Amino acid sequence: MKGAQRLIRTLVEGGVDVCFMNPGTSEMHFVAALDDVPEMRAVLGLFEGVATGAADGYGRMARRPAATLLHLGPGLGNGIANLHNARRARTPVVNVVGDHARRHLPFDPPLASDIESLARPVSAWYRASSDPRDLAADALEALSAAWGPPGAVATLVVPADVSWEEAGEDDAAPAFVRGSPRSAAETALSRAAKALRSGEPAALLIGGSVTRRRGLVAAGQVACAAGAKLLCETFPARLERGAGLPEVERLGYLAEFALAQLEGTRHLILVDAPAPVSFFAYPGVRGTPVPDGCEVHLLAGAGDDGPAALEALADMLGADATTSPPPPPWRPARPTGPLTSQAVAAAVGALLPEGAVVSDEANTAGIFLPGATAGAPAHDWLCLTGGAIGQGMPLATGAAVACPGRPVLCLEADGSAMYTIQSLWTQAREGLDVTTVVYNNGAYKILEMELQRVGAEAGGPRAQEMLDLARPDLDFAALARGMGVPASRARTAEEFTDHLEAALSQEGPVLVEAVLDRSQW
Amino acid sequence: MKGAQRLIRTLVEGGVDVCFMNPGTSEMHFVAALDDVPEMRAVLGLFEGVATGAADGYGRMARRPAATLLHLGPGLGNGIANLHNARRARTPVVNVVGDHARRHLPFDPPLASDIESLARPVSAWYRASSDPRDLAADALEALSAAWGPPGAVATLVVPADVSWEEAGEDDAAPAFVRGSPRSAAETALSRAAKALRSGEPAALLIGGSVTRRRGLVAAGQVACAAGAKLLCETFPARLERGAGLPEVERLGYLAEFALAQLEGTRHLILVDAPAPVSFFAYPGVRGTPVPDGCEVHLLAGAGDDGPAALEALADMLGADATTSPPPPPWRPARPTGPLTSQAVAAAVGALLPEGAVVSDEANTAGIFLPGATAGAPAHDWLCLTGGAIGQGMPLATGAAVACPGRPVLCLEADGSAMYTIQSLWTQAREGLDVTTVVYNNGAYKILEMELQRVGAEAGGPRAQEMLDLARPDLDFAALARGMGVPASRARTAEEFTDHLEAALSQEGPVLVEAVLDRSQW
Repeated sequence: MKGAQRLIRTLVEGGVDVCFMNPGTSEMHFVAALDDVPEMRAVLGLFEGVATGAADGYGRMARRPAATLLHLGPGLGNGIANLHNARRARTPVVNVVGDHARRHLPFDPPLASDIESLARPVSAWYRASSDPRDLAADALEALSAAWGPPGAVATLVVPADVSWEEAGEDDAAPAFVRGSPRSAAETALSRAAKALRSGEPAALLIGGSVTRRRGLVAAGQVACAAGAKLLCETFPARLERGAGLPEVERLGYLAEFALAQLEGTRHLILVDAPAPVSFFAYPGVRGTPVPDGCEVHLLAGAGDDGPAALEALADMLGADATTSPPPPPWRPARPTGPLTSQAVAAAVGALLPEGAVVSDEANTAGIFLPGATAGAPAHDWLCLTGGAIGQGMPLATGAAVACPGRPVLCLEADGSAMYTIQSLWTQAREGLDVTTVVYNNGAYKILEMELQRVGAEAGGPRAQEMLDLARPDLDFAALARGMGVPASRARTAEEFTDHLEAALSQEGPVLVEAVLDRSQW
Repeated sequence: MKGAQRLIRTLVEGGVDVCFMNPGTSEMHFVAALDDVPEMRAVLGLFEGVATGAADGYGRMARRPAATLLHLGPGLGNGIANLHNARRARTPVVNVVGDHARRHLPFDPPLASDIESLARPVSAWYRASSDPRDLAADALEALSAAWGPPGAVATLVVPADVSWEEAGEDDAAPAFVRGSPRSAAETALSRAAKALRSGEPAALLIGGSVTRRRGLVAAGQVACAAGAKLLCETFPARLERGAGLPEVERLGYLAEFALAQLEGTRHLILVDAPAPVSFFAYPGVRGTPVPDGCEVHLLAGAGDDGPAALEALADMLGADATTSPPPPPWRPARPTGPLTSQAVAAAVGALLPEGAVVSDEANTAGIFLPGATAGAPAHDWLCLTGGAIGQGMPLATGAAVACPGRPVLCLEADGSAMYTIQSLWTQAREGLDVTTVVYNNGAYKILEMELQRVGAEAGGPRAQEMLDLARPDLDFAALARGMGVPASRARTAEEFTDHLEAALSQEGPVLVEAVLDRSQW
């Protein structure tokens, strides 16, 4: 069996049966082997950032790794921003990066570069396979690293000749065995229980694997029993929410908001969430919202069984499973009047379907979304974990591949949309049920805010010009149609709500461009 | 003076007065300082790959560095593919990459990553500035590294607080002094002369700084005097050509062609060109087209004065300056009939304006271009130096910024166009005189060829699907209009020629989509 076939078979045996790709010459044996291993679904992206972001979205929803297939250093480079987000989300991903044949590398051909140096910053595990007979073992190690727990990005570099040479048969190959989450330490449990019983103001900060139903229920019980505040990380990778699910407040993006949320807290208990930190530093502002004198306790870290730890903690605190009923179903009214970001939020809240998966890269325009959708039917909310924009549309693409029966709603800011707009073509090609809303406000709005916040002198006209997306105006409906996705533009709240309703009621990809009223924020 | 102001002033003093950018929060002080230093022109790109590719195109044509402004590791990541091409082109570029404030990095905020590891593979020079008082000196070193010669990519990381803190005044700053090319060694000259006088078959391979008029004239004289073959590298960064200029044959992309070109050669003399190497390795094919027994002589390397070395060599060989007259002006007839890549080449040859700058990323569709344009009025031809696709449109954008009086023609393959299609918006915004031709053949054609060449078993339907761009069809005219660029689609040779003629006759950006006849290659 050739290396490429053996590699794909090993991936499939390890639970990876979707590969998002943009291959080149050095990956042609992998591509040719697709016909030999029909269990592997191959999804083409027109740009590597689409492939890596889709793998992230797939992994967050399927809870197992997708593979990517990338073309040497530059192809990996194009995928790095979304791999950065996947790393922060702890999404399991297996990157397969083709390279020149081993004997060819010493010639330093034009496409050669230091792939390892590019891969390391986004990869918890890295290896360049050096022998076709080791390729299956290398792939098994990559799978172990990716699956975790915690999930991680693993990068396997496969030289072209390792793909095309004989790699042995897989009859005798060891079966792949997934790892299991660790139990939280007893000392961590007892310290957390002691802190919560102290009577001092306490807060739980949950993240990672805990922001799904089981973890949320347990966290809600603990918080209720202890009279503690319940918060989750600012940008959770995947938050289950909506009617019937315990509500959790997200830690604020702006340092001032997060500072207010944690003010007076004496015990902060982390459950699969990193210690809170301001997204950016600002002159004269603290880098962390954790107040002076607040003790930070780690109940469960990455790779620990956070939900089980919370359930144990609830037992220790004698929490009543019947306390803290979830909020009742509630939807805002259909909005009317000018098309503002608030009107978009109301329309989304009014129409969000049961079981929807929301890919949220609305950025500043999304400020009203959490409130407007809190009582909508149960859904998943996927956030921009690493701050590298251009995540939303690829993430929605991968989530739709992972969840063929569920509607996917992508809420996308104009500036971020232009990073990986090629995603629409893959959605059309694969017939994915993704409704994309692009907020067209003609600006990098978040930077208008940040320009003032960093303390820079407000910015004159030449600075403002760098934040302006309205010269010329972008027409996202035209862009979508250019890639085979039906699209419409809406300029009033009524129009937008009608268009969104129509889009959500039909299968397949649709784009609704919300041309926001620029006289309002 | 704040760090950001001091940095921009230093760049301007060092001859860098254009900055292609996509900034974020950590770069807001740089952006705010643009109003204080009006000598610096800021050009916004909607994606970092546009900014870095534009800096490459600018540097190739202006022969001085542009700056880029990129947002932390992910922003740099998005720019890496085109920085890889710039590195291979030896284009001078100064990357300014913002980072978190120094005190904030230990918190590992979401956007933090190992910027150095990402930057090193594309940067001949790298530094993370650690003190605002050193920032000007750091920038001067970056400028020296970028200017060369040879030109290089230099990356300076500027933490946000280094930008916003006091950085001293620049009255006492040392003036920036550019480096000069080295003279080729006497021994290299005498060895080359000896080889060329030996009577054995010899070839000159020129590249880098030599493929412009002065180097070409000298190379032509040497080749003529010695009876040697004259070749240039496969993908020159900038080749001057057309009527009145000495003609030079490019080394073939395919190993078989290059092998035939060098067959029987006993002496290969490199003049600012790397030793030839096959773009990819194939099973059973040599990695280099240099025949066994051929001696390779380095006359001038990167950073040497290649044209002067060739002039000296011409003197030593007693070459006659009047020999080897350039080919006469010649244009193909306007094409008729089905729209094939050959017809597009004929139309380009028939219409290419005097002084045009051609950004060539036509890939397989461009095979007939060199022949069809050899006798067109003098022009510059810019190639895909590093093989990282997505170069053509950004390169054209930067070339147009560098050469406001010259028409720029971008010849772009469909697959590659989709990598950095956002370039069109910058062209519209800046009113750049770029005519873009997109060859729409609905496939990664080059991979159809490569799939067979690598020896993979031809590829079944699932493999073929990964090379197919026609499901759904891309509509590049719609994409262009979505970004404010007028566009048309042509389906016959006559239509295409008329559209191209109209596009070339008007100022500002235009896109002409050539919907190729798919029944022909």
